[in-house]
Order: sequence, then C-alpha cells, then structure tokens
Amino acid sequence: MPVQRPFNFSAGPATLPEPVLQQVAAEMLDWGGSGMSVMEMSHRGKEFISIYEQAEADLRELLAVPANFRILFMQGGGLGENAIVPLNLSRGGKVDVAVTGSWSRKSAAEARRYADVQVVAEGSGRNIPGSANTWSLRSDAAYVHVCTNETIDGVEFHELPRIDNGVPLVIDCSSHLLSRPIDWSRVGLAFGGAQKNIGPAGLTLVFVRDDLLGHALDICPSAFNYKTVADNQSMFNTPPTFAIYVAGLVFQWVKQFTYAGLQGLAAMEQRNIDKAALLYTTLDASSLYENRVEADCRSRMNVPFYLKDDALNERFLAEAKAAGLLQLKGHKSVGGMRASIYNAMPLEGVQALVNFLKEFEARHG
Amino acid sequence: MPVQRPFNFSAGPATLPEPVLQQVAAEMLDWGGSGMSVMEMSHRGKEFISIYEQAEADLRELLAVPANFRILFMQGGGLGENAIVPLNLSRGGKVDVAVTGSWSRKSAAEARRYADVQVVAEGSGRNIPGSANTWSLRSDAAYVHVCTNETIDGVEFHELPRIDNGVPLVIDCSSHLLSRPIDWSRVGLAFGGAQKNIGPAGLTLVFVRDDLLGHALDICPSAFNYKTVADNQSMFNTPPTFAIYVAGLVFQWVKQFTYAGLQGLAAMEQRNIDKAALLYTTLDASSLYENRVEADCRSRMNVPFYLKDDALNERFLAEAKAAGLLQLKGHKSVGGMRASIYNAMPLEGVQALVNFLKEFEARHG
Repeated sequence: MPVQRPFNFSAGPATLPEPVLQQVAAEMLDWGGSGMSVMEMSHRGKEFISIYEQAEADLRELLAVPANFRILFMQGGGLGENAIVPLNLSRGGKVDVAVTGSWSRKSAAEARRYADVQVVAEGSGRNIPGSANTWSLRSDAAYVHVCTNETIDGVEFHELPRIDNGVPLVIDCSSHLLSRPIDWSRVGLAFGGAQKNIGPAGLTLVFVRDDLLGHALDICPSAFNYKTVADNQSMFNTPPTFAIYVAGLVFQWVKQFTYAGLQGLAAMEQRNIDKAALLYTTLDASSLYENRVEADCRSRMNVPFYLKDDALNERFLAEAKAAGLLQLKGHKSVGGMRASIYNAMPLEGVQALVNFLKEFEARHG
Repeated sequence: MPVQRPFNFSAGPATLPEPVLQQVAAEMLDWGGSGMSVMEMSHRGKEFISIYEQAEADLRELLAVPANFRILFMQGGGLGENAIVPLNLSRGGKVDVAVTGSWSRKSAAEARRYADVQVVAEGSGRNIPGSANTWSLRSDAAYVHVCTNETIDGVEFHELPRIDNGVPLVIDCSSHLLSRPIDWSRVGLAFGGAQKNIGPAGLTLVFVRDDLLGHALDICPSAFNYKTVADNQSMFNTPPTFAIYVAGLVFQWVKQFTYAGLQGLAAMEQRNIDKAALLYTTLDASSLYENRVEADCRSRMNVPFYLKDDALNERFLAEAKAAGLLQLKGHKSVGGMRASIYNAMPLEGVQALVNFLKEFEARHG
C-alpha cells in the first residue's frame, strides 16, 4: 500500500473516505464480535437490522429529513429510477421535465414510456433555463422532474426550484446528495445513486413524501413499488446489505467531520464550496483551460473543463496520473476533462490538482 | 477476531469463503497497485473492466455456459426478476409456471401483471409434482417458469425438467447457482441472486439465450431490458461493481477448489452432495428432528427441519449459537429450523452441526 494514496477524481463510483475503507477492512471477517462479515449476515438478523436502523437514523439526521418522508434503500441506480419514478408517481398522466443536461434528458425519454411528458424548459447544457416561474408548467401534471446536478455537464441548481402550482417536485440529486442540505419544503421526492458521495454502486436512495406513496401503476414491479418497499422497511427483497453498511459508515464520518469551525453537513458543504471556488478560480485565470458553464450554476461536485488544444489531452491525462491525480478524463459524450470533487476529496486533493494545472500550463500552455 | 469463526447457516446473505474475505480486506485501500479500492473505481476504467471481464470469463468456464448465452450482471434480486423476466420474455402472452414452493408461487403472482399465467403443476411444498411431461403445458406459452431450488421449502430439482413442446424453460436457480452444473440444453434463461453461493446481496446474475433477447414489452424499464443490458456489457447503468469483484474472487476460489480427487465445480458439487447426505442421514435417524421433504427432491443447499417439540425451539437456537452455529432459525413463513449449507460451508461445519444435533437430542430428546 502506498504511504499516500493518489487523489481519485472519478465521477462515480468515486473516492471514499480513507477511515471508512480502513474500518471496512478491519471488520471484514468479524463485525462487532458477531463472527460474521456484514456480507454474510441475514438481512433479517438483529446484527444487520441494527446497522440498517443506525444508517437510516444518521441519514435522516444529517439531511434533516422530515418525519413525513420515507427513506428507501433500493437498487437500480439513477437509470432505474428514471422508470421507477413515473411507474410510482405519474398515474399515467402528465409529467413536466426541465432539461438542463444529459441526465434530465434521459429521464424525460424514459418517463415517456409511462406518461405524457412535456419538456417545460431546456437549457444549453451550460446554464439553467430561468427560474421555475418562467417554465411552461402544467398545473395538472403529476410531478415536475429536475436533475439538480448534472454529473456530465457540470450544471447545478444551488437553490432548488420553487414550484408554485402545487405540483410535487422530483429531484434527481445523485451527484450532490449529502454534499449540501436539501430544502424539503420544495421537494416531493428525491433520489440518488450512492456511488458519488455515499458508498458503493448498487445502492439507490429514495426520499419520498408520504402522500406520494400508494399510487403506483399496476405494471410497476413489486420490488420497485415505493409503498411496498416502504411498508417492508426496504426489505421486501434482499437489500444491498454491504453497500448499506458502507453508506452507514460514511454517514458517521460526515457527522463527525469538522471544517472551518463547523461540524457535520454544514462543514462538508463549506469545504465543498471552498474546493469548488479554488478549482474554478484557477480554471478562469488560465489561458489553457476552460470551464464553459455559466457562473451561477457551476457544479460544486463535477467540474468539466477543456484544454484549448485538444492535442494535449492524452499528455495531460498521462502526466496527471504520474502526479497521482487519477480518473480526470471527461465523459465520452462531451469529451475534455472532468474533476469530480465529492465529499471524500480533501482540499489537499484539489490543491494538488490546481498545482498540477498550473505546472502543466507553464510547460505546455 | 476469533481464531475460529463460527459456522453461519444463513439462507442468504450467506457465509463466504474465508480466503475471499481476507483478500477483500487486504485489497481494500489499494487494488493491484492502482491506489484505489475497487469501490472507488469508475466502472468504465481499465482496472474495473479487467475485473469484470475476468469474472465473466471465470463464471462462463465454471458453468460451461454456451457461446449463445449472454451473462448479465444486474440488480434487483430474485423478486425483481419475477417482474423483469415477464417484461422481457412474455410478449404479453402466456406463461406457464410449475409451483413447488414459496418462490415459484411468488413468481407466478408477479408475472400476472404482464401475462396470462397458468399454474401447470403444483406440489405440496414437500415434493415435485411429477415430471414435466405430466404437466398441463401450453405449446403457445412464451416460457415455462420453474424454481429449481426452493430456498424456503427445501425442494430441489436435481435434474432440470425437460420441456418437450419447444417452449423455453426459465429457471430461478438463486439458491443452487454455482453449487452444481446446469444442463443448458434444457434452459432458455436462468437467474439468481448472488447472496447464496456467489457474493454480496445486490447482484443478480442472468443467463439468457440469444434468441430470447429483443422482445421486451414497451413498458420494460431500459435499465432492466435484457437486450439493452447485454448490448452494454452490463454497464448501461452503473453496475454493482464491488459485488461483481467479490463474486469474481469467489469464482476463482471455486476454480481452485479440490475435493475427493476432483477440482472446480465438480469438486464443489461432490462436497455439497456429501454435506447434504451427512445432514439428512442424521435428521432421518433422529426421533427429535424431522425433515418433511420427499427424499428424491431434498435440497442440497437449504435443509429445513422441525423439532418434534416446538417448545424446544428457543433453547435449540440459543444452545446452537453458544456452540458457534449461527442463523439456524427457519423462515418465518414455515417456522422450525433451516440449515443452509452453501458452497462456502465446509464439511467441518456440517459435521459440527450434526454433532450438536445429536448432543442436543441426547439432552432433550
């Protein structure tokens, strides 16, 4: 094992806190004196139930999830939820979608299998298309769908849209979940894959307001029916137990995290703000690199950038890797580079990236 | 960590080979010199792709999966597949189901959302209802569904049914997958959750014959469309990467396993036969314990048994735990006890259970 692990900027599955990985390794053959790995525990045994209940309570506390929201631990990821949400919420009626990038576009396409979908606003991929009161919302829609952080495009809603017509807002918050608070007064349902800020791929978190349960279409698979999942404490089918355990350790880590005189999620958010500012400032000051997203909606989590000379891309990635900066290649659909700087990326990692960006520019700019 | 871990008879998530857990722990912070945990790797990076391809190749070799079958690494478990199979294969037509216990009954109920389902044979929960040529099969059915090992009831098809009318056979083999060979000439599709013989919960394996791809209903979610999953090498959505990695280590472990002069899956099958024989012989010779399944279809993996005096159940479980024999409680729907003796349960574990059964009977019988 290297003394210092490299910094890993993967968009997901993504870097995890080192103390969490150390604890997972230490407990691998014997969790809490049980003589079992968490992977080996029945999901209905008292050991795993205690892990599950602690994780759920910690997550609820961290995000201040109101009592009238259920937290579901599911499978299938964001792409699965693109179907599971309309299967549960659309009632076969109307769904409004604001398109701000690749993920919301995919969500709209998938929902068309089940509902009358209307794109009520469409951004350029580099902006948010106005405030919600300028969108052509339908008052009889079953819900409004927004992706509050576009992982590929790097566009983030720093404030959740306020939907004034009473229609529930559904947010796909996969890539900012647990990086900042959520204003639940504006939300009907939130979902996200774990593999950004929370834990291993294969776990999907869903937060759903009570009144939205119980309206699934008949064609909704039982295993993906929110009411069925909620009524069975996420154990209608065998849940991804090990991923829930790792997520629970991450929740504990966030609760104990301190930064700038703050603790917990507030500390994490402030560090995320500082990390993003450091990186965007460097990119904006450069004449080699370019981030193309409008300043008011730049993602704190996923920072896509382009070298002004594409011919330097391969050299950039090779030299970055040699400098201990991994997985900076941009998504294949948009090219360029992307630095994902989730909760587990320390400030030192962003500083190391910034230093490298400047050195590389000095040599090749 | 105890010197000797207890023996864990959980029906799933279930005990895993100790060398696999040790390797997972050792590689937790740095897989293969990459500086990353497997949990932290992009599923599209060369490191994870190498893990995925090795796992797929090893599984294909172990089970002698023919070239015209695709292996899919999915999410959602057996209960998810109960919907996903008819969404992909039923074409909205007819589905024949042989009911041999709890799981096939659930499969039939779920398939009714999408197809005209007929129960073509129904067992007592303790037997297999005759050979397939006695079932009231429909020649225009889209497929015939069988659960080849009923985890709750302990009923196993030791030979796969032969469907003579040309209709594809679908087998839910969750709880015997990788415990024995599969006769692919009789199968159109096989599926199973990983959490029995293979790895952590949250990974579902699907083996599907080429000609059955591409017929999904329009309402099938993209993330669960077999053709979409196959066309994207199981990476249409982010797969459960860490679970695939652990499964891959288990495949390696099975390949290297030796027993009774055999190696690999043949060795594993022989040990499973021997383990089951040891346990059933003990139960049958006892006047305190009783297994109620007919002899020709007793499961090699899940051995339910009852104490003739129910009042002894709690004492039995407490003394078993004290003797290092864990998770022997039967499924809540049928009561009694259940010893699941999957691949990773050594012969010594079954011997320890047998010794305990005899001692307990001597004290309390």
